[in-house]
Amino acid sequence: MESENHGVGREMFELVGTLFPICRSITGNGVRETLRIIQEHIPITLHEVPSGAQVLDWTVPREWNIRDAYFLDEDGSKYCDFKEHNLHIMSYSVPVDETMSLEELDSHLYSLPDHPDAIPYITSFYQERWGFGIPLTQREQLKPGQYRVFIDSDLKEGHLTYADLVIPGESEREVFLSTYICHPSMANNELSGPALLTYLGKWITKQPRRYTYRLVFVPGTIGPIAYLSQHLETLKRNVIAGFNLTCVGDDRAYSYVASRYGDSYADKVIDCVLRSRQRGFNKYSFLDRGSDERQYCAPGVDLPLVSFSRSKVGTYPEYHTSLDNLDIVSPAGFEGGYEVMTACFDLIEKNARYRIKTLAEPQLGKRGLHHNLGTRSSLYKVKDLLDFTAYADGTNDLIAISDLLGVPVWDLYPIVEKLKEADLLEEMAIEYQ
Amino acid sequence: MESENHGVGREMFELVGTLFPICRSITGNGVRETLRIIQEHIPITLHEVPSGAQVLDWTVPREWNIRDAYFLDEDGSKYCDFKEHNLHIMSYSVPVDETMSLEELDSHLYSLPDHPDAIPYITSFYQERWGFGIPLTQREQLKPGQYRVFIDSDLKEGHLTYADLVIPGESEREVFLSTYICHPSMANNELSGPALLTYLGKWITKQPRRYTYRLVFVPGTIGPIAYLSQHLETLKRNVIAGFNLTCVGDDRAYSYVASRYGDSYADKVIDCVLRSRQRGFNKYSFLDRGSDERQYCAPGVDLPLVSFSRSKVGTYPEYHTSLDNLDIVSPAGFEGGYEVMTACFDLIEKNARYRIKTLAEPQLGKRGLHHNLGTRSSLYKVKDLLDFTAYADGTNDLIAISDLLGVPVWDLYPIVEKLKEADLLEEMAIEYQ
Amino acid sequence: MESENHGVGREMFELVGTLFPICRSITGNGVRETLRIIQEHIPITLHEVPSGAQVLDWTVPREWNIRDAYFLDEDGSKYCDFKEHNLHIMSYSVPVDETMSLEELDSHLYSLPDHPDAIPYITSFYQERWGFGIPLTQREQLKPGQYRVFIDSDLKEGHLTYADLVIPGESEREVFLSTYICHPSMANNELSGPALLTYLGKWITKQPRRYTYRLVFVPGTIGPIAYLSQHLETLKRNVIAGFNLTCVGDDRAYSYVASRYGDSYADKVIDCVLRSRQRGFNKYSFLDRGSDERQYCAPGVDLPLVSFSRSKVGTYPEYHTSLDNLDIVSPAGFEGGYEVMTACFDLIEKNARYRIKTLAEPQLGKRGLHHNLGTRSSLYKVKDLLDFTAYADGTNDLIAISDLLGVPVWDLYPIVEKLKEADLLEEMAIEYQ
Repeated sequence: MESENHGVGREMFELVGTLFPICRSITGNGVRETLRIIQEHIPITLHEVPSGAQVLDWTVPREWNIRDAYFLDEDGSKYCDFKEHNLHIMSYSVPVDETMSLEELDSHLYSLPDHPDAIPYITSFYQERWGFGIPLTQREQLKPGQYRVFIDSDLKEGHLTYADLVIPGESEREVFLSTYICHPSMANNELSGPALLTYLGKWITKQPRRYTYRLVFVPGTIGPIAYLSQHLETLKRNVIAGFNLTCVGDDRAYSYVASRYGDSYADKVIDCVLRSRQRGFNKYSFLDRGSDERQYCAPGVDLPLVSFSRSKVGTYPEYHTSLDNLDIVSPAGFEGGYEVMTACFDLIEKNARYRIKTLAEPQLGKRGLHHNLGTRSSLYKVKDLLDFTAYADGTNDLIAISDLLGVPVWDLYPIVEKLKEADLLEEMAIEYQ
Repeated sequence: MESENHGVGREMFELVGTLFPICRSITGNGVRETLRIIQEHIPITLHEVPSGAQVLDWTVPREWNIRDAYFLDEDGSKYCDFKEHNLHIMSYSVPVDETMSLEELDSHLYSLPDHPDAIPYITSFYQERWGFGIPLTQREQLKPGQYRVFIDSDLKEGHLTYADLVIPGESEREVFLSTYICHPSMANNELSGPALLTYLGKWITKQPRRYTYRLVFVPGTIGPIAYLSQHLETLKRNVIAGFNLTCVGDDRAYSYVASRYGDSYADKVIDCVLRSRQRGFNKYSFLDRGSDERQYCAPGVDLPLVSFSRSKVGTYPEYHTSLDNLDIVSPAGFEGGYEVMTACFDLIEKNARYRIKTLAEPQLGKRGLHHNLGTRSSLYKVKDLLDFTAYADGTNDLIAISDLLGVPVWDLYPIVEKLKEADLLEEMAIEYQ
Repeated sequence: MESENHGVGREMFELVGTLFPICRSITGNGVRETLRIIQEHIPITLHEVPSGAQVLDWTVPREWNIRDAYFLDEDGSKYCDFKEHNLHIMSYSVPVDETMSLEELDSHLYSLPDHPDAIPYITSFYQERWGFGIPLTQREQLKPGQYRVFIDSDLKEGHLTYADLVIPGESEREVFLSTYICHPSMANNELSGPALLTYLGKWITKQPRRYTYRLVFVPGTIGPIAYLSQHLETLKRNVIAGFNLTCVGDDRAYSYVASRYGDSYADKVIDCVLRSRQRGFNKYSFLDRGSDERQYCAPGVDLPLVSFSRSKVGTYPEYHTSLDNLDIVSPAGFEGGYEVMTACFDLIEKNARYRIKTLAEPQLGKRGLHHNLGTRSSLYKVKDLLDFTAYADGTNDLIAISDLLGVPVWDLYPIVEKLKEADLLEEMAIEYQ
């Protein structure tokens, strides 16, 4: 799993740079623009779900678009200029063109006492409001007086936009990959996810594939709910492992949020890959969930899915502020996420239960697999291969054998190859839950 | 679970005071007198089992009654006067009216080297003997010479007396509560048990009830065996959880003795309640059993039952001596036991498996269950409610969810109420073992 | 389990002394001579499998015999004289009668840098070669020049020899015991195994037996494979527990190599016996296997078998060198191995699931099993007996009860006897895996 991916890390980082300035929300033209740029890389299909559509327990909200927003003091000085930073405007703010006192204005301002220079990310998707995010240091300088508030937005019947791409394999059984595209200018949460998924799509397309891969780019929460309302049966029938990609561009340790009971095939795959790296990682309980695994793993939905991150949502100081910018993601950070995910796909593609065809140990010598001069230490020369055959009893897949033997799963791949060449292995299907 | 029960603690303490002077044994008028006083509080029924009756592997012994007992030295000084303390006489002592040497007398005296001022509690239920319990300090002052020994007791064909009360609920499935009434003047072991069970009976009568409650007051060991011989089939069919109450009046930490494998519904209930208090408690293995759980949990009987105590029998220094008096129990001690047990009943009554009716997360906003202005920390505002819905998948009861979420079980009750009001929960029966 | 076996330890030690000088290999007359000496002790039957026979994935090699071997320097000094120590010759060396340079000779010499005074044990069973084991200190003194190399051996069509003995019991279900007889003069690995198995055979013959015992003496690796190829069906049908005996003569801690998943009946038996001794022991994973358990526990063979050792193969410094001589084994070492194995057989013979016939506790008093004067501490007098009855519910065998109660399994035997005499126990068969 050593990196040959320096180029691809830089390309993902550059794609994040391209997408960064766009003002996204859970609906609107920012989402469409983002998806169209991704479409230049991989052939995703855009879908539109009309406002008012019932999606499971939810209703698709009206579409929101914004052109400009700011407020002026009595001297005409401009504050919270949307054109300077799109985090200044509360997402889904209704249009406003009014003059009001500082006192009244202040009830619409949001700041972060712990990060006085940062703009907070604020939203009001399901209740009509307006508001500005403002660094605390600026807010404290506002003088009493009248302010003119201007928000040039619409909140109208329209559509929610998402995109997907199904890359077929030999089997209908599929690997499900999801990420979200609903946040304004923030880099790790969220643009790292769409950038990684785009480049994983390119990689998948080039590989021989037993399995079908489904890539989904949706606005958070309402997006997965809409997607599930349209595809639940197919997903429940076909998905063997799913990965929600979120906050995958920073340089901190890898982590994953386990599925509801932590026992799905996706849990086993990512845990095996991260253990095989033989460095630390963070495993979070489903109680620490925060992203779209909330929907994909809910009772009755029950997709076998984990959320993969470097620093999980909510655990890093820049999260949901203007500090989550291009400085906290890096080409090397992206490369790492890319390596872990492609190692997961490799494992899923190669994994099977194996049964050794001989009774008792195979004679390795006659097949050139054993250095057959017995000296004091020779017993251990082909130890891994013999250990593999000892546990290749038809009950264990590669994940189980890697765990039993305490060896990285990828060290088993050449052993499987050698034993297959010698016609010593019977391959048996995995029964996914 | 904060206490509103100061009054009831004092009332239980006073009931112990009333019952304390009576000389009880496993049969006899002391038992009847005790049960009749309890009958003034709750409508228990007294039952009589004749001497010689075969009860499982045992035989009901003859009935023992005692009026007086002491011995006199040559100067006419009186020792071990039954009328001063009924612990002076070995329970089931045969009648005696003889003069004998100190040497012969001494072979009938019992003292405690570790507690030289205490009278030990001694019995000989199944072999004819007589004896006196005497503080070691007094025994050492007896001078050589002749002693007149007088014991005015009978050991005759008669009855074993016990009482029960069945408080019916909507279901025949029942909660089984047992305590014992066979010890002379000792407070924690045993009068705390009957006092608590009496007041639990009053509480149960006033509550709405899904379940039937059976309260049993029996002499130790032979009592449960007699009761089981008459009711085993009913109990095996109906009991979902049982609690044996013993040593529940002191102020020390709560404890319970687990059922044989520690996995019955009663184990789960009491463990959940004691964990929910978020303070320490002692969980004893069935190997540390010492009270009537020995019979109720024996192979073939197998009631789902635990023994609930503050200081378990045998673990506190005053146990089975005259030091186990009113000084070591307290109104606050009783209140605590009352709170734990009523919390167990509350949980049993409220418990069910729940299934959230929506696929994916419910939209809380439209139901006023969610503060729908999303800021940086809002995700966690209704965290417990959302965590509940995540695990309300039809497989978990409230005990399991409390354990999965690490929250006190009573914190789940208002969540269940809110979700039921919103018609979001399907309720499913628990399958008891 | 205290030793009364000082005599038998010395006898086993003496048998090792008798067998020590013989030059064994995986075939040949040394094996036959060894087995014939054992035959003087127990009535084993010798079997011959012809060279070239297909045995599972392997082929029986040609038979090897050797009469003499050494090499001479230009002065006629003799080195690596087979008649001085049979470890000097690589097992299965082809015949040689040649003169060659030191350089050429040296490519056939084997030494141990870590043990410069020891001769290493070297073999080449499946590839034609020749070689000498030589202490490093001697090898460094060889001078350049011509050497005459002489090896008087044959490698011809012949037979592989093994022996077995089936000691019938009441049942066809059998205990399987195996050891190997293929190493030249080394004491712990391997002669300790054959010596112990011989004396266990004598012991078994004298005992009443529920079970059949099968004793197998085979050359390592190819021997078990040949034996399995002839007896696999019978063994799979009948064996309830198997023990491979290896390195059982030294004084170090006991150990065993677990079966593939560590859950066979043999694992449970030996673990119970070693825990019951209440001193430390080493439990090795199947990943640490090194002896014939490699074949007996392989996938598809799956005998319920462990390897029993004091110091396991490969874990002690003298292993596979001339230092593994009579100095590192002892009569006391053998006695210990004998005691552990006979304790295993005792347990296997006595073990059953038991069910107490009474409902609730049995009345011990009327059967004289209880000291029925109840004083403060009397409750615990027959504690072990009552604890046994509490868990004698038909689900637990003696191993499980020993584990639940934390008492040595042999402390349960007199309890079982007493309860059987009182007709209180129903005995139920164990269901072996």
